[in-house]
Amino acid sequence: MAPTPGSSRKRTTSKQRKTISKRKTSSTFTASDVMRPVLALRDSMRKQRKAPTTLSDINIQGVLKEVLELGGLFVRRRIESALADVARSILDGRGFRYVVPTRSAGNQLYVEELDRIVLKDKTSVRAFANTSTVRKTAITTRVMGLVWELCKKRIHTTKRDLYYTDVKLFRTQGESDEVLNDVACMLGCTRTSLSVVASEKGIVIGRVQFREAGDLIDCTRMGVGGKAIPPYIEKITEIQSDADFILLVEKDAAFMRLAEDRFYNKYPCIIITAKGQPDVATRLLLKKLKDTLKIPILGLVDSDPYGLKILSVYMSGSKNMSYDSANLTTPDIKWLGVRPSDLNKYGIPDQCRLAMTEHDIKTGKELLEEDFIKKNEAWYKELELMVKNKEKAEIQALSNFGFQYLTEEYLPRKLAQGDWI
Amino acid sequence: MAPTPGSSRKRTTSKQRKTISKRKTSSTFTASDVMRPVLALRDSMRKQRKAPTTLSDINIQGVLKEVLELGGLFVRRRIESALADVARSILDGRGFRYVVPTRSAGNQLYVEELDRIVLKDKTSVRAFANTSTVRKTAITTRVMGLVWELCKKRIHTTKRDLYYTDVKLFRTQGESDEVLNDVACMLGCTRTSLSVVASEKGIVIGRVQFREAGDLIDCTRMGVGGKAIPPYIEKITEIQSDADFILLVEKDAAFMRLAEDRFYNKYPCIIITAKGQPDVATRLLLKKLKDTLKIPILGLVDSDPYGLKILSVYMSGSKNMSYDSANLTTPDIKWLGVRPSDLNKYGIPDQCRLAMTEHDIKTGKELLEEDFIKKNEAWYKELELMVKNKEKAEIQALSNFGFQYLTEEYLPRKLAQGDWI
Repeated sequence: MAPTPGSSRKRTTSKQRKTISKRKTSSTFTASDVMRPVLALRDSMRKQRKAPTTLSDINIQGVLKEVLELGGLFVRRRIESALADVARSILDGRGFRYVVPTRSAGNQLYVEELDRIVLKDKTSVRAFANTSTVRKTAITTRVMGLVWELCKKRIHTTKRDLYYTDVKLFRTQGESDEVLNDVACMLGCTRTSLSVVASEKGIVIGRVQFREAGDLIDCTRMGVGGKAIPPYIEKITEIQSDADFILLVEKDAAFMRLAEDRFYNKYPCIIITAKGQPDVATRLLLKKLKDTLKIPILGLVDSDPYGLKILSVYMSGSKNMSYDSANLTTPDIKWLGVRPSDLNKYGIPDQCRLAMTEHDIKTGKELLEEDFIKKNEAWYKELELMVKNKEKAEIQALSNFGFQYLTEEYLPRKLAQGDWI
Repeated sequence: MAPTPGSSRKRTTSKQRKTISKRKTSSTFTASDVMRPVLALRDSMRKQRKAPTTLSDINIQGVLKEVLELGGLFVRRRIESALADVARSILDGRGFRYVVPTRSAGNQLYVEELDRIVLKDKTSVRAFANTSTVRKTAITTRVMGLVWELCKKRIHTTKRDLYYTDVKLFRTQGESDEVLNDVACMLGCTRTSLSVVASEKGIVIGRVQFREAGDLIDCTRMGVGGKAIPPYIEKITEIQSDADFILLVEKDAAFMRLAEDRFYNKYPCIIITAKGQPDVATRLLLKKLKDTLKIPILGLVDSDPYGLKILSVYMSGSKNMSYDSANLTTPDIKWLGVRPSDLNKYGIPDQCRLAMTEHDIKTGKELLEEDFIKKNEAWYKELELMVKNKEKAEIQALSNFGFQYLTEEYLPRKLAQGDWI
């Protein structure tokens, strides 16, 4: 199923170009041809013995218990219990203090079996009667109070709004944001459980229906613009779909092409983009769709280190929110394209390739050291090729062969050949 | 109807704070109280003699004719006719050349009667047999060829995709983007007519239904996330609505609050945001809604120079696309809030106000010189107050009084008092 990236690194001759464009204009694949490898992947995925996905599935010591997605009532109970602990601590003579899990890089661990970053069990004491921690202790208390109120009222707010409820205490939004993550970690729940959300960026279109806050949303009937992914994932319920795969797209330009061509009509799929860096809402929706529907996810990103980084955030999580990796990460995303080896394979002309900057190359080399790349030989090879050739390309480079080359040729051929890694 | 910004510039005392929060918690307005001033505004708007909205309505010389929103077939005809002109020019012995309207600042004019910027009629010659213009001439020809193809295929593309179809010629996306505007201007049509779109950013929710590419979209049933505004406005048809006003929101945090609280259920409105700087798709939708429904637009932006700038882009257009101001601008947007005078009026505490930076103050002073501010005395006064006090505030600053203060107190009171300018 793997592609043959080995096609010798030569400039495509005009004869080769002709062959490619001949192949290009005569789409010989039927829709069922195209879908066969995807269906095989889906079935093999479903047959697979469930891989360990929680820390309790594997035998590992010295790590923090996973945080849970909790309802408002449970969050309130946990806040009350945290405050009861504080009261006990005062009565015991140890003073007003919290014990907070450490979230720094030194306390993070990549777990290969789970393919994601988790937190180790180091904690630190946040005491009120200590000049170095008094402010953070006060902020922690205030944040818990505000979250308790949000849960009670059953409403959500943004990090910015939260900051503004007590600017005098928080001083900068960075401080309230940081403590918000600490509180989630301390209470053992996801940040979303705290009813504080980031802004929404992502859009979805294609073969999926769900209820959102009671409204029935049919993503096959979302015109060409698609549905904005809501910031509150728990409002999405009753997911139904006849899609055979999820197409995860890095950029909205490609999304627009796919949406206008109603790609999902011919090839049953759900198309998602976060328009660049994945936001929490998009990551949560992706995970929810994957868990519910059990269909493969194919990633379409730029052929550059950032494309890979984006896939890695969906798969292994960002370091900043590693305490919540269980809920935010979706392992086993297939890298469909645009891959460094595609550039020669599809004869992307030189002028559509971009030279990697010093910074790109540095980022690429750093990625080669990352565990999630190392453990996947095919990915490692592709990245190695990119760094060696010092060339990158955007998804849009495919437009060189025509505006609809992406939807009418590139993707169908990729799918038909099972050309993902 | 105007507010009383004159309330003396004193820090709110704790007693005043108490009064405010007392008023705050006892919403004494019924929904019909709140809506009365808006309905009056809507009716007076509808009764008004139609203000001149096109250049032909007023007597003005030396300006370029307005560009039109054209269908693909007409765009193709105009391209063919432009090329026929070139052929004639060659036969006449003047060589391969285009006559292109000048789009530089010197050729722009603010027309007070229309309340927008238009282009004057200066043109420049772009000749193939001239080293300084040969490249632009070639690019212009190529862009017209590509646009012709898009119109023929009835598909859309992004500026980025367009650039990638001939990277060798265009070299940078800036060049193809520039020429794209030139071509629109030359052909006398909007850039959207050329089937080249920017990426979508905006979202809409509330009391409006329409068809988008055939699909029926009901924005009262879009959950909490709303509907992504499509990049191709002409796909939106059959607009129906029982809304009494449009609430134009600068930021998505405020949008989220309004959407979750289903503000539009109690106060019939359509809520739109472009998440910051207005993009073309959002501006087009706003104009289309206003023209179709003839309801007032109330703007809710940050109390800083950028909030005003954002309103001005919706109203008077951006300078870069002044050739298309007729289609992109929506005059007569009311500034609802957050206005500099609101900060004292609503007792926004000091710590929620931000000091304006040097750059903010400079931008503010520049705005004071702009025609669209000068001609509106109330706006001018507010901006003057802002620059004098050197203070700004975000919409989120209202969260200081509670997470739902915006939807349950601030907006209802503003509406009930007709407190817009």
